[in-house]
Amino acid sequence: MKVKKRTRNLAETRRRILDAAFKEIHAHGFHASSVDTILEQTRLTKGALFHQFASKLELGYAVVAEVLAPMMRARWLEPLAAFENPLEGILHQLRANIGDEPQAMLNLGCPLNNLIQEMATTDREFRRRLRLVIEEWIAGVEAEVKRGQRSGHVRPSVDAREVAEYVVTLHEGAFSMIKALRDKRVLWSLLTSMETVFAGIAPP
Amino acid sequence: MKVKKRTRNLAETRRRILDAAFKEIHAHGFHASSVDTILEQTRLTKGALFHQFASKLELGYAVVAEVLAPMMRARWLEPLAAFENPLEGILHQLRANIGDEPQAMLNLGCPLNNLIQEMATTDREFRRRLRLVIEEWIAGVEAEVKRGQRSGHVRPSVDAREVAEYVVTLHEGAFSMIKALRDKRVLWSLLTSMETVFAGIAPP
Repeated sequence: MKVKKRTRNLAETRRRILDAAFKEIHAHGFHASSVDTILEQTRLTKGALFHQFASKLELGYAVVAEVLAPMMRARWLEPLAAFENPLEGILHQLRANIGDEPQAMLNLGCPLNNLIQEMATTDREFRRRLRLVIEEWIAGVEAEVKRGQRSGHVRPSVDAREVAEYVVTLHEGAFSMIKALRDKRVLWSLLTSMETVFAGIAPP
Repeated sequence: MKVKKRTRNLAETRRRILDAAFKEIHAHGFHASSVDTILEQTRLTKGALFHQFASKLELGYAVVAEVLAPMMRARWLEPLAAFENPLEGILHQLRANIGDEPQAMLNLGCPLNNLIQEMATTDREFRRRLRLVIEEWIAGVEAEVKRGQRSGHVRPSVDAREVAEYVVTLHEGAFSMIKALRDKRVLWSLLTSMETVFAGIAPP
């Protein structure tokens, strides 16, 4: 019983640290984030944090694998599976994940895109982990497009991987633009172009 | 004569510092760049640098206005003007600016996109200057699309601003993806989708 409780406490502590670290990194970037500020949010001791994460870098790696990857699945791959027509699902998720978000949140940028821009060049392990999330995202969208081909919503001749790369790229590009312009109206231009592309790959 | 020479020397010194700062920031990001490393490249004294730039931040602002903005014009707006059909020009510039770049250079990301992701949230003046470059880029592409409408290469009903936002977004998204995946093949998926969009906005 005692061991179970200790394990549960460790898991809860880890979750609290990761949530606080995610918010801090999303708002300020990895370099500008400090372990002390993250600790203040959690009201834990430095010892409790370094017991689970040997360094700030290790904490950053864990944010990618344990916060960003599940977030990508929850915001993209899991909702898409619920749509009969995956192309409709993709347009819907873009509207939901960007169009319905408050501008103040969008101004912070896509947390995955931010870390790619900041860390992919400077730290090999960060790059490896960020790339895994992007690869899983593209592969997941590709699987959805293939499902659409089987159900007759997408032409059989379409390269599903190509469509998936286009969707993920436009999403990350949209976040870059919105962050720079502080105006999410740019999203509607992108949806218009995506509708044109999707009309071209749907059966006549 | 002496005043002229001094002015010329100051301009040359400024150019050397800005070029070195641009390379350093492109390779390592703004936070991770150091004034000392930049100085080593230029073989100038700290005094010579701080005579022209009051702080590292001021140097960063100058890189945006005096290196990134002219680079955007030279790589995008000026070449586009040479194409009779601006849509062909846009596809050509995407191929030239991404497809023909060495992978090692692409791995560093788009210098403008990098700075947006790293600095737009944390520093208001950085954001203002980065936004000016993005706005000028979008407005320049929009003017080209409008020229295409006048010359009969683009349907009159097309929203030129919408097309311009789409083009710039896809470009910045492409750089994000290539930086994450370290593989520029993703560009071909994007060009395919862009060709579909452009076929839809060209006259029948």
